[in-house]
Amino acid sequence: SFIQHCYQLFDKDRTQLGAIYIDASCLTWEGQQFQGKAATVEKLSSLPFQKIQYSLTAQDHQPTPHSCIISMVVDPIMGFHHMFLLKNTSDAWVCTNDAFRLALHNFG
Amino acid sequence: SFIQHCYQLFDKDRTQLGAIYIDASCLTWEGQQFQGKAATVEKLSSLPFQKIQYSLTAQDHQPTPHSCIISMVVDPIMGFHHMFLLKNTSDAWVCTNDAFRLALHNFG
Repeated sequence: SFIQHCYQLFDKDRTQLGAIYIDASCLTWEGQQFQGKAATVEKLSSLPFQKIQYSLTAQDHQPTPHSCIISMVVDPIMGFHHMFLLKNTSDAWVCTNDAFRLALHNFG
Repeated sequence: SFIQHCYQLFDKDRTQLGAIYIDASCLTWEGQQFQGKAATVEKLSSLPFQKIQYSLTAQDHQPTPHSCIISMVVDPIMGFHHMFLLKNTSDAWVCTNDAFRLALHNFG
């Protein structure tokens, strides 16, 4: 449900994504690297498409030795691959590591 | 280069993969979950195909807050997605979390 929450934030108001990233967060978007909350939110807010029309058919989640959750989401329709690491802080779950790859050009 | 090493172990002698998994390791293979070194190596050793003929075009690696490395590898030729978390122990780097998805049936 946290994942649905994140994707909904992305679809509705990306500037609110600041709530789930921290200054230690890393984002890799199609191989481009961004470090920190501000750079991450700026990049995600600047993306040209408006919505992820996702059909999240394949989701894998595992607990890590440091009480984080590591997740991989593969969307065969949009052709995107998304990996992230969630950490439980005193306040909330935050996303410390995030990587996206779009593969439409490979499979289209 | 650690990643090349892992894929080479997979191709040459999967029983040696025990060296890179620990008892806390989790593997998810196409949604099936396996816990621990023995179950992980048994599953990977039992896979019917002999080699990953990989062309690892898209690799993303990030440091995590707990000094681990989180990685995503997408292979558009084989259509597989692989995510893993590597942890540096006193001895060596080990893989604590591992998830694979094959997507050939989606894109073939």
